[in-house]
Amino acid sequence: MRRERVRDLLSRVADGSVPVDAALASLAQEPTESLGFATIDHHRALRQGFPEVVYGAGKSTVQLVGIAQRIAERGDGVLATRVADDAVPALLTALPGAQHNALARTVMLRATQPAETARGTALIITAGTSDLPVAEEAAVTADAMGCVAERLTDVGVAGIHRLLSNRGLLERAAVVIVVAGMDGALASVVGGLVRVPVIAVPTSVGYGASFGGIAPLLTMLNSCAAGVTVVNIDNGFGAAVAAARILHGATE
Amino acid sequence: MRRERVRDLLSRVADGSVPVDAALASLAQEPTESLGFATIDHHRALRQGFPEVVYGAGKSTVQLVGIAQRIAERGDGVLATRVADDAVPALLTALPGAQHNALARTVMLRATQPAETARGTALIITAGTSDLPVAEEAAVTADAMGCVAERLTDVGVAGIHRLLSNRGLLERAAVVIVVAGMDGALASVVGGLVRVPVIAVPTSVGYGASFGGIAPLLTMLNSCAAGVTVVNIDNGFGAAVAAARILHGATE
Amino acid sequence: MRRERVRDLLSRVADGSVPVDAALASLAQEPTESLGFATIDHHRALRQGFPEVVYGAGKSTVQLVGIAQRIAERGDGVLATRVADDAVPALLTALPGAQHNALARTVMLRATQPAETARGTALIITAGTSDLPVAEEAAVTADAMGCVAERLTDVGVAGIHRLLSNRGLLERAAVVIVVAGMDGALASVVGGLVRVPVIAVPTSVGYGASFGGIAPLLTMLNSCAAGVTVVNIDNGFGAAVAAARILHGATE
Amino acid sequence: MRRERVRDLLSRVADGSVPVDAALASLAQEPTESLGFATIDHHRALRQGFPEVVYGAGKSTVQLVGIAQRIAERGDGVLATRVADDAVPALLTALPGAQHNALARTVMLRATQPAETARGTALIITAGTSDLPVAEEAAVTADAMGCVAERLTDVGVAGIHRLLSNRGLLERAAVVIVVAGMDGALASVVGGLVRVPVIAVPTSVGYGASFGGIAPLLTMLNSCAAGVTVVNIDNGFGAAVAAARILHGATE
Amino acid sequence: MRRERVRDLLSRVADGSVPVDAALASLAQEPTESLGFATIDHHRALRQGFPEVVYGAGKSTVQLVGIAQRIAERGDGVLATRVADDAVPALLTALPGAQHNALARTVMLRATQPAETARGTALIITAGTSDLPVAEEAAVTADAMGCVAERLTDVGVAGIHRLLSNRGLLERAAVVIVVAGMDGALASVVGGLVRVPVIAVPTSVGYGASFGGIAPLLTMLNSCAAGVTVVNIDNGFGAAVAAARILHGATE
Amino acid sequence: MRRERVRDLLSRVADGSVPVDAALASLAQEPTESLGFATIDHHRALRQGFPEVVYGAGKSTVQLVGIAQRIAERGDGVLATRVADDAVPALLTALPGAQHNALARTVMLRATQPAETARGTALIITAGTSDLPVAEEAAVTADAMGCVAERLTDVGVAGIHRLLSNRGLLERAAVVIVVAGMDGALASVVGGLVRVPVIAVPTSVGYGASFGGIAPLLTMLNSCAAGVTVVNIDNGFGAAVAAARILHGATE
Amino acid sequence: MRRERVRDLLSRVADGSVPVDAALASLAQEPTESLGFATIDHHRALRQGFPEVVYGAGKSTVQLVGIAQRIAERGDGVLATRVADDAVPALLTALPGAQHNALARTVMLRATQPAETARGTALIITAGTSDLPVAEEAAVTADAMGCVAERLTDVGVAGIHRLLSNRGLLERAAVVIVVAGMDGALASVVGGLVRVPVIAVPTSVGYGASFGGIAPLLTMLNSCAAGVTVVNIDNGFGAAVAAARILHGATE
Amino acid sequence: MRRERVRDLLSRVADGSVPVDAALASLAQEPTESLGFATIDHHRALRQGFPEVVYGAGKSTVQLVGIAQRIAERGDGVLATRVADDAVPALLTALPGAQHNALARTVMLRATQPAETARGTALIITAGTSDLPVAEEAAVTADAMGCVAERLTDVGVAGIHRLLSNRGLLERAAVVIVVAGMDGALASVVGGLVRVPVIAVPTSVGYGASFGGIAPLLTMLNSCAAGVTVVNIDNGFGAAVAAARILHGATE
Repeated sequence: MRRERVRDLLSRVADGSVPVDAALASLAQEPTESLGFATIDHHRALRQGFPEVVYGAGKSTVQLVGIAQRIAERGDGVLATRVADDAVPALLTALPGAQHNALARTVMLRATQPAETARGTALIITAGTSDLPVAEEAAVTADAMGCVAERLTDVGVAGIHRLLSNRGLLERAAVVIVVAGMDGALASVVGGLVRVPVIAVPTSVGYGASFGGIAPLLTMLNSCAAGVTVVNIDNGFGAAVAAARILHGATE
Repeated sequence: MRRERVRDLLSRVADGSVPVDAALASLAQEPTESLGFATIDHHRALRQGFPEVVYGAGKSTVQLVGIAQRIAERGDGVLATRVADDAVPALLTALPGAQHNALARTVMLRATQPAETARGTALIITAGTSDLPVAEEAAVTADAMGCVAERLTDVGVAGIHRLLSNRGLLERAAVVIVVAGMDGALASVVGGLVRVPVIAVPTSVGYGASFGGIAPLLTMLNSCAAGVTVVNIDNGFGAAVAAARILHGATE
Repeated sequence: MRRERVRDLLSRVADGSVPVDAALASLAQEPTESLGFATIDHHRALRQGFPEVVYGAGKSTVQLVGIAQRIAERGDGVLATRVADDAVPALLTALPGAQHNALARTVMLRATQPAETARGTALIITAGTSDLPVAEEAAVTADAMGCVAERLTDVGVAGIHRLLSNRGLLERAAVVIVVAGMDGALASVVGGLVRVPVIAVPTSVGYGASFGGIAPLLTMLNSCAAGVTVVNIDNGFGAAVAAARILHGATE
Repeated sequence: MRRERVRDLLSRVADGSVPVDAALASLAQEPTESLGFATIDHHRALRQGFPEVVYGAGKSTVQLVGIAQRIAERGDGVLATRVADDAVPALLTALPGAQHNALARTVMLRATQPAETARGTALIITAGTSDLPVAEEAAVTADAMGCVAERLTDVGVAGIHRLLSNRGLLERAAVVIVVAGMDGALASVVGGLVRVPVIAVPTSVGYGASFGGIAPLLTMLNSCAAGVTVVNIDNGFGAAVAAARILHGATE
Repeated sequence: MRRERVRDLLSRVADGSVPVDAALASLAQEPTESLGFATIDHHRALRQGFPEVVYGAGKSTVQLVGIAQRIAERGDGVLATRVADDAVPALLTALPGAQHNALARTVMLRATQPAETARGTALIITAGTSDLPVAEEAAVTADAMGCVAERLTDVGVAGIHRLLSNRGLLERAAVVIVVAGMDGALASVVGGLVRVPVIAVPTSVGYGASFGGIAPLLTMLNSCAAGVTVVNIDNGFGAAVAAARILHGATE
Repeated sequence: MRRERVRDLLSRVADGSVPVDAALASLAQEPTESLGFATIDHHRALRQGFPEVVYGAGKSTVQLVGIAQRIAERGDGVLATRVADDAVPALLTALPGAQHNALARTVMLRATQPAETARGTALIITAGTSDLPVAEEAAVTADAMGCVAERLTDVGVAGIHRLLSNRGLLERAAVVIVVAGMDGALASVVGGLVRVPVIAVPTSVGYGASFGGIAPLLTMLNSCAAGVTVVNIDNGFGAAVAAARILHGATE
Repeated sequence: MRRERVRDLLSRVADGSVPVDAALASLAQEPTESLGFATIDHHRALRQGFPEVVYGAGKSTVQLVGIAQRIAERGDGVLATRVADDAVPALLTALPGAQHNALARTVMLRATQPAETARGTALIITAGTSDLPVAEEAAVTADAMGCVAERLTDVGVAGIHRLLSNRGLLERAAVVIVVAGMDGALASVVGGLVRVPVIAVPTSVGYGASFGGIAPLLTMLNSCAAGVTVVNIDNGFGAAVAAARILHGATE
Repeated sequence: MRRERVRDLLSRVADGSVPVDAALASLAQEPTESLGFATIDHHRALRQGFPEVVYGAGKSTVQLVGIAQRIAERGDGVLATRVADDAVPALLTALPGAQHNALARTVMLRATQPAETARGTALIITAGTSDLPVAEEAAVTADAMGCVAERLTDVGVAGIHRLLSNRGLLERAAVVIVVAGMDGALASVVGGLVRVPVIAVPTSVGYGASFGGIAPLLTMLNSCAAGVTVVNIDNGFGAAVAAARILHGATE
């Protein structure tokens, strides 16, 4: 159960609108659940504000559906990432009301009760068109985490005026996620322009000495703009969770 | 000039306590200043809230002192990192009132007018004793940036109860900086325990297949705890700036 | 011939229940056998307690079947690993009574006479669901080597309580095999909790800077828990053989 | 307190030879102790059979002495590894009765009450003379852990008869530690000759494409002899702890 | 034209059996020939004793056939390596009498006049069955270069007696080619047993930390047996040419 | 709009042949144009002399066509590189008059008004037949940029006379592009023979320790011929743009 | 002899001001000269416009002086790079009139007759103060090669306005050399701003995941600005020679 | 004892000039000798034609002297390589008559009875002056192994005529050793010019992306000249032993 729901439940117990026994039953669910091939951490929603996200790669459709269903049953919604195309129909059948985002390769079922929305906007900037799938994974994740995301696309540093002419957008953001492959240089330029947190996501876009994203990863780790932080290659999901950690922290 | 000071100046112009010409003179300083061997970005204090920090490695003492003095003259304080031992006396002479932290290898001169303190505490956790210099660089930087830092030392995962018995500290923090070499596993465990932002700093502590910090860097980039972000190896400074970006954002 | 069978044979010769000539004939088999494309080390069962295991990758079905049959003829059973799906029918036809484990990608024929069971249990722990194929290869191999294996699945460190709530299992084990991809951090935590041997198996589960398993490999080699040993990426087979070497040693 | 001592204490309480209060006082020591720069895990002796070992690299002499003294006070002995030459005198002064092994770079103080000796011998084999410091670190550690170690030196595979003429030694061992740099090939040959556990330690001995020990590390991880496990480059200490985990397991 | 044929032609001119004009016509062929997409070095047969070998990978069938035909027209034979399966029929049609070796992936047309056979045998040893395609490429190339090749298969060091029981073969060889993947340890053992040249070929056989052949490549480059030389990963062709350079040198 | 066209327009305004309003309308087009998934930098033609080139890899056919059409509408021509085979028909339909080069994987539409041709020839040399696709990408790009390209094919250093017999070609060139995989040695030899700029393009041609082009990349970066510059692996496009930067500079 | 001097000599022979015999004597000097430990390529001045440059690293002072003197005797000047401090006095003694540049670590003796100056300016831009030694090596080399160099220092992209406020300088340059360590992002931004050739020099400035310059090297090779070329890490010399190849080409 | 001496001894037994008992005593020496820190392989002289060579790096002076003396006592001479300067006096004292080569860092004592000289010359070619120490190690080793070595110095491919003008030397050689750092391109050019065996030695000469010799190592492994073999970086010793294996094979 999400923190908000537990907090809500406790308030209702406090004001007498929910009897103690009913509250007890709700809270008595096991914190972990074993499916044999998976051990679901139901406590995560309470501990970290959002249920465990199901990482689709390397799981069979049966496993994926099994895990997603058990999480969905708790009512806090569920997000599956890196979902292979052929697993989508089964997931959508198993999770009525869920939405598939083909570009982001995600399937998301919203919580029955909307989560509290975090304060401030996460601006997701991409250097090129090919970085869009990673950016979209970030956008869907941010949405699932209760954060508002804006997008600024294809503004790589080879045409620096494309970025500079959007300084208004940059200044409005509470967090910036920079998604870039090839030289990854956009993160440093953005890092020097804004004072809010900047989370850099290297992508595997490129060829040759890009080495599947190592080049932009190293660029970002060595950013001459102080305080830029980095997540794994193509990890749009992780960047959005980091942004959500920040925005929800600012909200409380 | 720091943002606070400009804001303050503008308020005084607004209420008539500072005449327009005097304000103009204060604001008319050049945003960049060229020393031949360096181009100081005086605008950074206004744009990002803190003056350019002087990275000491690879600079001669003459260059280091020259740059630090020019920044100090603006009155917003100055921080020099990675200061070699033999450059310290000259710096301390050039910057009366500055403090040297031998473990962190920093020299810091506070601003003449204290900066606004950010809301919330940055908790700096180290896996081992040998990670302390990096943690201390982070602590000094956080202090310079107007953030409060707490420390939790030598609580690596090989004795997991050392960490778990400090959950109170973890729960009080608004941001956690995890400093770890060798296997770098501490970042994942912490990332799973807290819901606030976690910034992981791999250190070059270790030997053999640690490869000067590559091992913990990769561990942290691949953290199974979602939303952990990473900075460069041994980059305590960068982690603290990232924390300051977050904490000041939450403050505004 | 396995050591137990030779020992048994020699005892029977000693007590007269097997005549010397019959024993001689049994022992007179060549220690190596050349198939042109392979040289089978029949002595291995005697020297190391289990016949040569057939590594299926890179071998044609004809070669695979040919080698497996020759080993099976000796009666000590046979294990083939990394068996491609299209080689399975031919193997099952050639080895009546053999069992195929699709998850582990193994085909195993038990010895005609059960091997001596080693003392103590090997506990196989996985960090995530995607690590299961490697864990299953380890479990099948342990079984083939006469060892008892237990499993604990999907207890990665991002939800540390999933592991801690299973300390009973951990304390019962005589050897622990930790199978983990991504950050590989589970090995260090387990290594600090138990005093028995811990064998870490990095898996290629992950993406980006996981580099096909290099990240958890380095994590495990740099484990801050002393005395954790490591095998090759995805090498569930090797981990189980290492466990069998330990458990059979404790048995003698 | 080591497990043996606690067990002994409990027996005495059981038979009345130690009063409950005295036992309580002995057991009431804190499991962890914070020195500011270090958090000592006093529980490790009880949990894992030997007190925390002090890794000397990257620690100042003051830190090293401070930690070692606190551990020594518990009476279970102490082992410091990778001790720089200039820290030795201070350590020996602080730990009366401790022994310095210059080749192994260790300082060891024996427990006031000898630990239970494990069953079986650990045979430490080196490929070349230059591998001796790593082998010696393993030997000292094994000794500290209550294990008997034998040595076989400079028997690399370029002269395979040097190894084969020592098969008696190999057959007597309960665990074999193979220490080798350069091509690291010795681990595979030994792994094929014995049936007991084989722990391979790559060393940084070599030059050029040895890459500081990466070459033998990869050789050992890819050993064609099944069940060979590997520790970090130059990690003689870790290999010995792994051996102790095995031998003490076989003893119980 | 091969050296032997030119030498033969000159002898016939000398003894009058071939008139000067006819010899001139034979020798007047251009040393290089441009096909637009390729520049054939016809001089190579004269300079190095064998015509240019056609490396099939990355060439279209049309290019492959075009080049092979032009070389074949000179009568010194032609060898194509790394020939994709779908290019084989066209090559066999274009080169009547040529032979396809499916395991080695070669197509070879013998010279119209047999080349001089080199003195001494090249022994090709493989560590495992999966190394056979590389070994076979070496065997076909050796044959094409006029060298006699023998084979010893699947004698990796995990069963060292498989190699030692073939010392007769080893002692008869004038050159040894060792083909091994995984740990590549066989090269060092062989290098220590024989005094003739040893050419090591790492193969991409293996998985995980084998890194597509880097592990055995490094093992072989760091061989503790002095004077072992190494060729590129999977380069059976190159090893055989190196052997031919040696054996023809010994023959002259 | 290309620089030449703007210059031409301004001349016509100056001589009165184009009225100011018409010129204004032509110049009033937006410098950037957002398609949602892409932000086209229309200013690039003016700033750098050629419109943005569309990099086809990682873009859907819809995206590719959308971007190419918008660029084409400006009349300065358009070049798409790394175009997948299945995107070609749609591109050719969308861009009437465009040409597809299958070897180079490019689709090019010429400008309605031919660009100014640069002075001097770019000589494109390849080491082997398999390097041709990269060389052809360079040739098409050079053509699109208004440069004349000549080709010299398959003259790798293993037959050095193939290169030396073409010194006339080398001496006529104003810039040399060297395209080579495997050992990449051709760049150093050419760099020592000519005094004009040499741009080296490593290709991913090769196998094993070529590591997808890392080997020739390192060779070229370490060239013992001074002043050789290098572009990314397989980046024929980038090499040609670098050549165009040089040749157009020499032309002005 | 430099090309200009030979051209001059031939003109004088043509107009009769130099007799044929005297010209012959001047031209009759050997193209290469062997010193035992070095083979000087005296032809390089004629072939490439400047004498062989002496790379100081790895040469003894005796070797360095010996080579430099032989080159100097020809009268075309000499440049030694990477000169260790302790070799400087001997070089300055051996080459009267030579100049030592301590920052660039060069010793240069000008030609007796000034070389023709190339048309256009090479602008050398550095990202940070620590990049200055590499930039200065480039500046000295450019000077030695007859090229005019301008400098723009410490304008890294974290403060993008420092670069943008110098667009006048950028537009005047005929070639730009970008010297940057850490993230190396400056090359991409500059490459997008100018249309002249851009030569990027990664430096080893940085720490951790900079890997001694690999990070900026990869950034530059993957530059999203088309046509940026790259030289070896810290190779200011090579960048300047590349610039000289371009500028002299534009001059002829 | 070397093979020649044993053969000689046996001949004398055959012709009666040496009595059987005396021969027996000479042959009865142990094949291996243990010094505690080393196990000397005295059999190597008989098995491989030359006594074990003492690799000096990583051995103390005491160890070095101890091993060298025991080998010297057998009378077949001794060679120590990589001898640190401070170990030289003790070695020269312990081995009267031994010679120190400072450039090669070797100490060599000739056999009391000269070894049989191999047929043919080993030509050692270096690309630059800085490669000389490695080349000299090869030359000393060749001499110790009874081979004649010639040298050709500083003929790197940036001035290809320096090599081509020495084709006479190349054609006389029976084996060529090519020693080159930086781009390592010389090996491919030489490999294409000669038909005898070519052994390539990459050196750590260079900087930046040379990566301590990885660049030339990869160049050489990927040589486009067929049949070039490679040894470890800086391994002049190994190259010479490989040459000796070839030349002695051609001699028998």
